[in-house]
Amino acid sequence: MHKSRLAGFIIDCETDDLKSAGRFWSEALGMTSRPEPGSGKYMILDSGEENPYVEVQKVAHPSRVHLDIESDDIEAEVARLEKLGARRIGVIKNWCVMEAPTGQRFCVVPAERPGFAAKANQWD
Amino acid sequence: MHKSRLAGFIIDCETDDLKSAGRFWSEALGMTSRPEPGSGKYMILDSGEENPYVEVQKVAHPSRVHLDIESDDIEAEVARLEKLGARRIGVIKNWCVMEAPTGQRFCVVPAERPGFAAKANQWD
Repeated sequence: MHKSRLAGFIIDCETDDLKSAGRFWSEALGMTSRPEPGSGKYMILDSGEENPYVEVQKVAHPSRVHLDIESDDIEAEVARLEKLGARRIGVIKNWCVMEAPTGQRFCVVPAERPGFAAKANQWD
Repeated sequence: MHKSRLAGFIIDCETDDLKSAGRFWSEALGMTSRPEPGSGKYMILDSGEENPYVEVQKVAHPSRVHLDIESDDIEAEVARLEKLGARRIGVIKNWCVMEAPTGQRFCVVPAERPGFAAKANQWD
């Protein structure tokens, strides 16, 4: 038995200038932004605590938007998604990159958003 | 003076089988889904009324995820975003497709989500 839900969206930007990328999306969406401490790769936009997160990430691949699914059991969640037709692409730190049968890449990440235990979906 | 905010995310799927695409994302995200009446192009996922919407769209271009910005004045919002560095790609029905300086396509759409007037950002 484990839980999962939509965690948020990452705006992947192929750039060396994370600050400018973060500034554009912050102003476009009308959300304040702050750098994720330490990483140098993410700007966190203030999407509201109850909402899925929105982050700008500096990446080396072509720009895109991807979504994250958060779970209290990454392996069980990845196995569940594989049964639905997704495939495992690789592991980065403590999250798993997957590809949907419809072609989009997405990540399965450790549950961190407030309200997870009460609001996430439970899978038997 | 006009308002805008993040409206939601569209999961664009290059497929002729909208139903299967909708079923995957519905089960992956643990959200019920329903077809948008009449269009045959969208499945609406139940992301919660207060949250940005999540929809699955059947498209002819490669699969991706894009975001929508909703506004009570499309022309004013597009002009604001152009000043930030985005460019106008084209108009589809009553929305405008734009490209961010960081490369992602996104849309500016008429405001429709509940709470827009009270919660959107106001631009002078």
